[in-house]
Amino acid sequence: MKSFEDLSEQFLEKFNIKHFPSQPENLYRPADYFLGIGGKRIRPVMCLMGNELFDTINDDAYHVASAIELFHNFTLIHDDIMDKAPLRRGRQTVHEKFGESTALLTGDVMLVIAYDYLNKINTSYLHKIIHLFNKTAREVCEGQQWDMDFEKKESVLLNEYLKMIELKTSVLLAASLQMGAILGGAGDGNQKHLYEFGKNIGMAFQVQDDYLDAFGDPEKFGKQTGGDIAANKKTFLLIKAMEEANDTQKKQIRNLMQTNPADKVPQMISIFKTCGVDEWARELKEKYIQSAYTHLDDIAVLSVRKEPLKYLAEFLVQREY
Amino acid sequence: MKSFEDLSEQFLEKFNIKHFPSQPENLYRPADYFLGIGGKRIRPVMCLMGNELFDTINDDAYHVASAIELFHNFTLIHDDIMDKAPLRRGRQTVHEKFGESTALLTGDVMLVIAYDYLNKINTSYLHKIIHLFNKTAREVCEGQQWDMDFEKKESVLLNEYLKMIELKTSVLLAASLQMGAILGGAGDGNQKHLYEFGKNIGMAFQVQDDYLDAFGDPEKFGKQTGGDIAANKKTFLLIKAMEEANDTQKKQIRNLMQTNPADKVPQMISIFKTCGVDEWARELKEKYIQSAYTHLDDIAVLSVRKEPLKYLAEFLVQREY
Repeated sequence: MKSFEDLSEQFLEKFNIKHFPSQPENLYRPADYFLGIGGKRIRPVMCLMGNELFDTINDDAYHVASAIELFHNFTLIHDDIMDKAPLRRGRQTVHEKFGESTALLTGDVMLVIAYDYLNKINTSYLHKIIHLFNKTAREVCEGQQWDMDFEKKESVLLNEYLKMIELKTSVLLAASLQMGAILGGAGDGNQKHLYEFGKNIGMAFQVQDDYLDAFGDPEKFGKQTGGDIAANKKTFLLIKAMEEANDTQKKQIRNLMQTNPADKVPQMISIFKTCGVDEWARELKEKYIQSAYTHLDDIAVLSVRKEPLKYLAEFLVQREY
Repeated sequence: MKSFEDLSEQFLEKFNIKHFPSQPENLYRPADYFLGIGGKRIRPVMCLMGNELFDTINDDAYHVASAIELFHNFTLIHDDIMDKAPLRRGRQTVHEKFGESTALLTGDVMLVIAYDYLNKINTSYLHKIIHLFNKTAREVCEGQQWDMDFEKKESVLLNEYLKMIELKTSVLLAASLQMGAILGGAGDGNQKHLYEFGKNIGMAFQVQDDYLDAFGDPEKFGKQTGGDIAANKKTFLLIKAMEEANDTQKKQIRNLMQTNPADKVPQMISIFKTCGVDEWARELKEKYIQSAYTHLDDIAVLSVRKEPLKYLAEFLVQREY
């Protein structure tokens, strides 16, 4: 059983090739550029891990892993257009560097080429893989739509927000694992548990991400905290705070968001604490982690095969702060 | 053997259903809206015709036909964003009515759902169908990119322009027929001839479209002529004229395009005629039609089975003017 790091290296060896033709240059060069920005390639490596949980890694798992990574990059390129984001991982976004029309079309063709990779796999699993890939792709689009809808809404219910996060980020992690499992010949029950493991880890990671932005130690966290608060971003914390706050606190929160005073971040953090949102978030994260581990335990393979997944989960959601 | 009209009716019966879930409404309502605008559904019906050329129409052909129509609508939604087009078939475009971000995402999800339809077909043909579908989708994206590139270029070679038109419009017609043929169990040679038939008909149609805009009888053509000239659109005629014109005529053309005088359209038409571009376009169209018919003749099935395709071709490219 290989570690995330080893599999990551193996994946990059296969993935760092030329995926696109050279012409039309204005279509494919932006695609090369964006893949060149890099990223942690977590999702494709999870596909390999899901595969190795049940069998020796096969070529089809690499094809699907490549498809997943191209799909993920397609969503990033299009999301960046919608969010008008100038930077991604410290580099210019595709639409910023090459224009919106090109970014749109480059994303489109990247999605098509993702399906080219899917189409390389063995016929017997093709239907199942495409079914799960498509379901996930639809969900990711739906999550992005809910996210845009929520940005315009005055108030969002916690349950709605949880569903949005699940669709926008967790299902792809879950499906990456499951696609690997399908290709490894896993049965339906094992597939289901692995999917739920991935989904819960994804949720825990997202709760943690929101938590660290408000309560993390900037030195250990590696970036300035309070960014979400400064940008009035709807997060787990803000949404829960609005549910927990009394009328006075609600007014304070709305006022801070509208007037943007210099001490908005510490003031908001103080309200969060008064409402007990910090403690709540730690518990919520813990709940997701426990649920993830229960599902991992329930997978009917030898424990030793599960170790790399356990380490990955710990790495993702037990970051120091 | 059924006519285009009969098959069109049969297709609409299957296609006029709800393709999308109801939530998130802001993602799927625009998709319903756009499909509701209608269209001639030529491509999916061509898929059915390609299927019936070799066998009784099967369910898989309907699935692929639906996928093709959804793909085509996805390209229209995204092209309209890139072209900043306010109207499509006399109705508001998706981005105009619902905003650019929604149009982008709605197009994306429509493409994914097109693959859902592909994934419904029998496993034995799935690889081949997805292979051709993807190749065509990539080519359509490439054609759109070349088109955008050319709009910014001072001069475009006729060969480059022909290639762009082929990619942007003809290959999808050709592939629609071929996908039907694949599902009908056609051999490689027959598939190839049918593809070439569709491609050549597509080219002839496009030449005719450009021709009619300049030389058509507005009453018979059904719309005002000269629109392409007024908009300085690069067409077969303009590109050929720039190749044929002497230095004085070239200067005149450039001058007309820059100054946009009130009599620009008749003046440009007069230059086109002096350069013999009208005669050339008629011959070019005829060349494509002849090539299409030769390929149709070479398909090894009884002539009577080919009749609906012949009628369709005649309908598409022998319009009175």
